[in-house]
Amino acid sequence: MTNVLLTGFEPFDGSGVNPSWEAVRLAAATPPEGVSLTTAMLPVVFHDAIARLREAVEESGAEVVVCVGQAGGRPGVTVERVAINLDDARIPDHKGAQPVDEPVVVGGPAAYFSTLPVKACVAAVRDAGLPASVSHTAGTFLCNHVFYGLMHLIASGRPGVRGGFVHVPYLPEQVPGGDQPSMSVKSIAEALTAIVSAAVTTTADLKETGGSLH
Amino acid sequence: MTNVLLTGFEPFDGSGVNPSWEAVRLAAATPPEGVSLTTAMLPVVFHDAIARLREAVEESGAEVVVCVGQAGGRPGVTVERVAINLDDARIPDHKGAQPVDEPVVVGGPAAYFSTLPVKACVAAVRDAGLPASVSHTAGTFLCNHVFYGLMHLIASGRPGVRGGFVHVPYLPEQVPGGDQPSMSVKSIAEALTAIVSAAVTTTADLKETGGSLH
Amino acid sequence: MTNVLLTGFEPFDGSGVNPSWEAVRLAAATPPEGVSLTTAMLPVVFHDAIARLREAVEESGAEVVVCVGQAGGRPGVTVERVAINLDDARIPDHKGAQPVDEPVVVGGPAAYFSTLPVKACVAAVRDAGLPASVSHTAGTFLCNHVFYGLMHLIASGRPGVRGGFVHVPYLPEQVPGGDQPSMSVKSIAEALTAIVSAAVTTTADLKETGGSLH
Amino acid sequence: MTNVLLTGFEPFDGSGVNPSWEAVRLAAATPPEGVSLTTAMLPVVFHDAIARLREAVEESGAEVVVCVGQAGGRPGVTVERVAINLDDARIPDHKGAQPVDEPVVVGGPAAYFSTLPVKACVAAVRDAGLPASVSHTAGTFLCNHVFYGLMHLIASGRPGVRGGFVHVPYLPEQVPGGDQPSMSVKSIAEALTAIVSAAVTTTADLKETGGSLH
Repeated sequence: MTNVLLTGFEPFDGSGVNPSWEAVRLAAATPPEGVSLTTAMLPVVFHDAIARLREAVEESGAEVVVCVGQAGGRPGVTVERVAINLDDARIPDHKGAQPVDEPVVVGGPAAYFSTLPVKACVAAVRDAGLPASVSHTAGTFLCNHVFYGLMHLIASGRPGVRGGFVHVPYLPEQVPGGDQPSMSVKSIAEALTAIVSAAVTTTADLKETGGSLH
Repeated sequence: MTNVLLTGFEPFDGSGVNPSWEAVRLAAATPPEGVSLTTAMLPVVFHDAIARLREAVEESGAEVVVCVGQAGGRPGVTVERVAINLDDARIPDHKGAQPVDEPVVVGGPAAYFSTLPVKACVAAVRDAGLPASVSHTAGTFLCNHVFYGLMHLIASGRPGVRGGFVHVPYLPEQVPGGDQPSMSVKSIAEALTAIVSAAVTTTADLKETGGSLH
Repeated sequence: MTNVLLTGFEPFDGSGVNPSWEAVRLAAATPPEGVSLTTAMLPVVFHDAIARLREAVEESGAEVVVCVGQAGGRPGVTVERVAINLDDARIPDHKGAQPVDEPVVVGGPAAYFSTLPVKACVAAVRDAGLPASVSHTAGTFLCNHVFYGLMHLIASGRPGVRGGFVHVPYLPEQVPGGDQPSMSVKSIAEALTAIVSAAVTTTADLKETGGSLH
Repeated sequence: MTNVLLTGFEPFDGSGVNPSWEAVRLAAATPPEGVSLTTAMLPVVFHDAIARLREAVEESGAEVVVCVGQAGGRPGVTVERVAINLDDARIPDHKGAQPVDEPVVVGGPAAYFSTLPVKACVAAVRDAGLPASVSHTAGTFLCNHVFYGLMHLIASGRPGVRGGFVHVPYLPEQVPGGDQPSMSVKSIAEALTAIVSAAVTTTADLKETGGSLH
């Protein structure tokens, strides 16, 4: 059995639902064979979110950690490639903090790359008939913050753990006018399951392009 | 039993697959209760497509006709509201014709509205957890052409038939870079099934907004 | 001299500015040679807007009427092709009315086509180095309402007048996050001037495609 | 006088024109007061582009370097925040190389942040009435490659130089169907001039958010 930790976020920005947590819960109901799945809901609060994540990593004994967040407006599931050492909040977090141009970790490196097999994860979702691609920015709000916090934790003391971040689209109910992309919670959960399976079973990532021209 | 005709298009524009036909075929495998479903694949050829559609309506004895086409780039399933009497082709059809600013039917009215319950159809897809909205343009290529042809057929001689047009997004395999929205064929087929059910069972459409600011 | 009426809308939907009116005002400051330009600001109120438009047509003695509105999110200036006989308001107008699935004109035809040379207008904007295209939907809110009202007025009693509708993008100040397209007011005004010139001087429209696949 | 180097790229991906070079040339014709402007066109060839950039930095004695590239599909001018140590090419470069998941500089840090005052640069463009925002990814093709190469050059031996990267949208002529954002070459050149002025005159960057939620 491989211990896997899957995290989502609580709702934010006025929405009553966060697709990341809805999909994580649904995916956890039927884990892939050979995987012991633990879940955690992270608060939309700078630094508290990382503290909660560290506890969850500790408690779960996770060998693989996949953090999940909402990327409203993106047209598919995106597996993030790189976390940057920057908080720049367009809106306040749930405790009212709104850091602008501050590092996630003072003195930390400018960035960390994901240690998930990102190309294999994308391929697994696409093999399931669902839209996915690699992304090269997780933004500068809570998602990137947690992603950087995770990779810093791994780099500074848990070398055996592999980890990364996945962004998921809006749910249809969050886009009443239908003018932005969205995806059913069932499809998002299937995508997360495919990613967890790929992360657990892939030792060397695929050597195929997932690049962006810009 | 209600006789329903569901049509899709053959592949075009260099793509080896057309999500409209793939989803129509999949939806036809498990029709809603009380529905007898006939399918037809229309050619991407001006006027021939309408001729094929008329034959299919005749042969099937359809009481409800739902024509389906691909709208690459749209973020969900869209139920079309209005067909206009205009062909303006950005690319040639499969016989090389490329009409510019010509009417679909010489002397026909400027437009026909769908006689499907468009709001109820959208609501049914959204109730199934999938993205959908009303659209107010079916373009000026084959989709609008067939939609106008269908409504003209109904208006000029088949008053008992109700009909309309549904646009569906790309499949994930048509968007290798993931930079445009797409939807799994399974989800598209589920959406079509929900639309057929709503079309068959709804007598008065919902009175709720599906409007666009522009 | 050709008398041209150019209309814009007052601000709406919580925005303090409406690019249509800002650009109309700026364009009116330097009319093309041979053109006598009158402007009018229309209220964001169903039916009142059409009444105000009719007065302005009357007072100005306009031979060409170009109504302009905001299409937030569109990536360039769009010259509308067709007005439909449908009000379906996603938000209330400034007097609180929110018609859903009602005709603009009871008993009117389903649609009217623009009588501006839409292709020549688009070409003129593009020749000025600015983004433009033909659009096949003006939505179902005030813009389409006014466009339909204009074409109905022309069809029912002013056969010598030519008229149509142009949608313009957001101004940069309306998109603080930069995540949607926008255009400087100066560029929008240049585009309107190019459209007025083309409308006045073109007798037969260009025979070139401006179609949409969907 | 401050020496500024402004670079653009040669055309690529089948396009006969590259807006970055067209706008750089136009901006160079009227440099801001107090600025001595040198330009260079970089080849779309991995590593050769960096070599050409190093020569141009050397020859120009530049104190400020602004590299410019095309980001087709983006709705405004974007000032890049971070360069990552990753080449992942979706298409081959002009010598046929297509690196996948290789570092720009072997052994280099994961990322470098821009040393331009990115917030002040964005504000300057917006003050000129044009659309701009901060971006947190320059992609994984030549633009990011050159950006990383520039920052590595500065970090490893030219501490007095400040530098960064700016992405510009398509020109209208590159988007014949009008379905993607574009901007006139004149507006892009004005934006670059505003950025150069801001970069030269701003010593401490603005403390205001330019963040992205994702």
